[in-house]
Amino acid sequence: MAKPKKTPRPKAEAPKGFRDYFGAEVTQRAEMLHKIAQVYHRYGFDALESSGVETVQALGKFLPDVDRPNEGVFAWQEDAEADKPGDWLALRYDLTAPLARVYAQHRNDLPTPYRRYAMGPVWRNEKPGPGRFRQFYQCDADTVGAPSVAADAEICAMLADCLEEVGIERGDYIVRVNNRKVLNGVMEVAGVLDPANPDLFAHERGIVLRAIDKLDRLGLDGVRALLGAGRKDDSGDFTDGAGLTDTQADVVMGFMQAKRDTGAETVARLRELVAGSATGAQGVDELETIADLMAAGGYGSDRVEIDPSVVRGLGYYTGPVFEAELTFEIKDDKGRVRNFGSVAGGGRYDDLVKRFTGQEVPATGVSIGVDRLLAALQAKGRMSAQAEGPVVVTVMEKDRMSDYQAMVAELRQAGIRAEVYLGNPKNFGNQLKYADRRASPVAVIAGGDEFDKGMIQIKDLILGAKIAESATLEEWKDRPSQYEVARGDLVAKVREILELNR
Amino acid sequence: MAKPKKTPRPKAEAPKGFRDYFGAEVTQRAEMLHKIAQVYHRYGFDALESSGVETVQALGKFLPDVDRPNEGVFAWQEDAEADKPGDWLALRYDLTAPLARVYAQHRNDLPTPYRRYAMGPVWRNEKPGPGRFRQFYQCDADTVGAPSVAADAEICAMLADCLEEVGIERGDYIVRVNNRKVLNGVMEVAGVLDPANPDLFAHERGIVLRAIDKLDRLGLDGVRALLGAGRKDDSGDFTDGAGLTDTQADVVMGFMQAKRDTGAETVARLRELVAGSATGAQGVDELETIADLMAAGGYGSDRVEIDPSVVRGLGYYTGPVFEAELTFEIKDDKGRVRNFGSVAGGGRYDDLVKRFTGQEVPATGVSIGVDRLLAALQAKGRMSAQAEGPVVVTVMEKDRMSDYQAMVAELRQAGIRAEVYLGNPKNFGNQLKYADRRASPVAVIAGGDEFDKGMIQIKDLILGAKIAESATLEEWKDRPSQYEVARGDLVAKVREILELNR
Repeated sequence: MAKPKKTPRPKAEAPKGFRDYFGAEVTQRAEMLHKIAQVYHRYGFDALESSGVETVQALGKFLPDVDRPNEGVFAWQEDAEADKPGDWLALRYDLTAPLARVYAQHRNDLPTPYRRYAMGPVWRNEKPGPGRFRQFYQCDADTVGAPSVAADAEICAMLADCLEEVGIERGDYIVRVNNRKVLNGVMEVAGVLDPANPDLFAHERGIVLRAIDKLDRLGLDGVRALLGAGRKDDSGDFTDGAGLTDTQADVVMGFMQAKRDTGAETVARLRELVAGSATGAQGVDELETIADLMAAGGYGSDRVEIDPSVVRGLGYYTGPVFEAELTFEIKDDKGRVRNFGSVAGGGRYDDLVKRFTGQEVPATGVSIGVDRLLAALQAKGRMSAQAEGPVVVTVMEKDRMSDYQAMVAELRQAGIRAEVYLGNPKNFGNQLKYADRRASPVAVIAGGDEFDKGMIQIKDLILGAKIAESATLEEWKDRPSQYEVARGDLVAKVREILELNR
Repeated sequence: MAKPKKTPRPKAEAPKGFRDYFGAEVTQRAEMLHKIAQVYHRYGFDALESSGVETVQALGKFLPDVDRPNEGVFAWQEDAEADKPGDWLALRYDLTAPLARVYAQHRNDLPTPYRRYAMGPVWRNEKPGPGRFRQFYQCDADTVGAPSVAADAEICAMLADCLEEVGIERGDYIVRVNNRKVLNGVMEVAGVLDPANPDLFAHERGIVLRAIDKLDRLGLDGVRALLGAGRKDDSGDFTDGAGLTDTQADVVMGFMQAKRDTGAETVARLRELVAGSATGAQGVDELETIADLMAAGGYGSDRVEIDPSVVRGLGYYTGPVFEAELTFEIKDDKGRVRNFGSVAGGGRYDDLVKRFTGQEVPATGVSIGVDRLLAALQAKGRMSAQAEGPVVVTVMEKDRMSDYQAMVAELRQAGIRAEVYLGNPKNFGNQLKYADRRASPVAVIAGGDEFDKGMIQIKDLILGAKIAESATLEEWKDRPSQYEVARGDLVAKVREILELNR
């Protein structure tokens, strides 16, 4: 090895906005992704894994979210080769832009329609904030090349199935569906959209879209202010509004509040609101078809409903949009009740592949927020934050390592998570502290005496901890927390204790 | 949405050296990683997932492989903030450097020893070549903070278990173990290493190490040439040698060929070779201890053996080194027999954490090459390249979509992978072509006639394909490939056909 230069020590820190995940955080997410993948697979979706790196050209340089047009990607330029300047490469910021590239590149080898799912990290070059990281997981399913709203309906059903598969019970979630065409129809009626000249009022429509999307946070008054002159928030900052007249704003507010008790009534109300707009009428028809298809598949209004207040922020949606909301309440750290809110969303977008091929390719998809879902399950107490600890075989006699190794080998072969203590064995207290830190359920102890007799000591650490916590030993007196058993009974006794504590 | 500018269309291409993985390629790797994770878990290793991005400072800028000192990482500089220049960030090139950073950062919260496993993509800014990609998976397990060779032995046993768990049968692989200290002892004896001044001859030793590591490719004569004056390869390129004298080179060659029929004989031979070197003797002792521990755990010489020709290329190993080799032969595309070679390797490295903390922390670990393992299983015919296709419910009548949707919903609820055809249903031939492309086992067909009668048609596509291939229909005449059954028998009949074809 080359002689190292004397340089100051590097800082042992993850870069700002990035974090490490340990133990159960990793395995629980992996398990959730696996369950979701199984549902996607059952629906006929095929796995796709593209790399984390794309050319900036293929990716498009900025996020499609018009709310944050300046937030970007991590990008760098490749070394020049001969006289050719290097390509600009970037980390993907979502899984949809790579799908468009993959579909355009491989379309002759892919079935039409192409149903695919993808799971993996994406990166955003954003200012990190509390709970906001610059690398996070996405878990998407999309159908490319199917213009029929049956494709959208299928994705809504699949979304409901995914939530139930990962442990969200029916009644604890709702998939809400809307249609951008209905909103466009409403804006036609309000005079903020001219179908003959769709570029007109684009700025105002953008503000309307984002205002509706913030209903949860701002409430009706806040949205109303943003539709009109603008809104001053609590800190005194002023956000410009869309500048709609009162009459126009009333139409939009009417749309947002058009939800009725039943889907049929909501559809009827929406039909009134878009009267006169061909696009609007088409949107309402599509909503009705989706509702019919869902019902035919057995997905009733306890799982899927039409809700005009759902618009989704992204500019690129062109038809049905949907999101899944968890409906149960949880208490935050300060005991305040709050809703968990949206854990998944998606919709139809018909323009992404066109960038590459010039051909319009209809597509629709959903993205499930696995980290939010995990947090929700933890909040509901349905997921323990602690992984199962290993059985620890302690080391009493250093030159008996072969015997200890044989014990763990037996336990592992029986499918029991087990390890021999590999630190410095001199201080036995440290070994038990280690077992405690690992959340070990059982410690195995064998010293000279035991080896002479052909016996081992087995300590039930979970029971031991309970006894230590409890003021009175009374309730535990019939159950010892340490046993001496024959060496040959190692596996049987450990298994018995593990089952007792399960 | 902002008005798009007229720009030339982007190229739909993955960046050079990156590729997309489809269907079974993705799910088979995921399944293999899951199986390996289960073994790692059973051995008491905890999952760790750090992000793909690290600071260049924490990562160290270059790969540790002295063979390729100039090959680098993908790196970029963060935007400056106030007057502070931005940090340099980079994509990780392996999972060991991030482990060192994580351990140094979180060591007060981690158990000692810390057993962790990690799986995920790593990136290398290398010239892409055939079969060599710039993003690939690593799948590592390491024990940090355990000086005992019991930690190394445990990892060798775990490696054997992993290989069997993913489907490599006992006898089809061998874990070969060696020790860098033995090699150092041999070099002391040969006079290429002076323990009192270890920096002396470092260059020569680097060449010796890399020469031995290439034994597979260069053969004994090639290695011998590199130990001496140098070697001219077939293309006429000359590689400088280590410049050892004949006597010195003989000692090294003797080491490399020191493997005997049994571990005990090999150990005895090594002891002769390192006579006079304290380091060498320690290395041989360690090898002997590892062999004893393996035997105690039931890992005999059919699974693990001492082999002095294993040195591993990386400069950072300090003690035991090991690698797993597949021993079966496969035929390549041109019918030539070849060995599959190494699919995993690792060893002890004691200096990586020191960079951060100044304290020496002993560590040992293994990295399994999942992509090579997958290729091996495919070559052995133990893994099909084709994923299970979905049952396709065809669309004969467009306005019966609800009925078709109800059929797939039933199939999916029964756990059967199924989809309704979502392309343009006009051309029925296209629907069957689609089913063929999806490798569908079964198509469901229902038109006006069937709906009137409450019946459906179920087509066995696998049998259909066999009949189409076969010149004579004789052998199939007793088994129809299409059935008409009552609508209510959909799930039962489909399941029956799937089981028949399994």
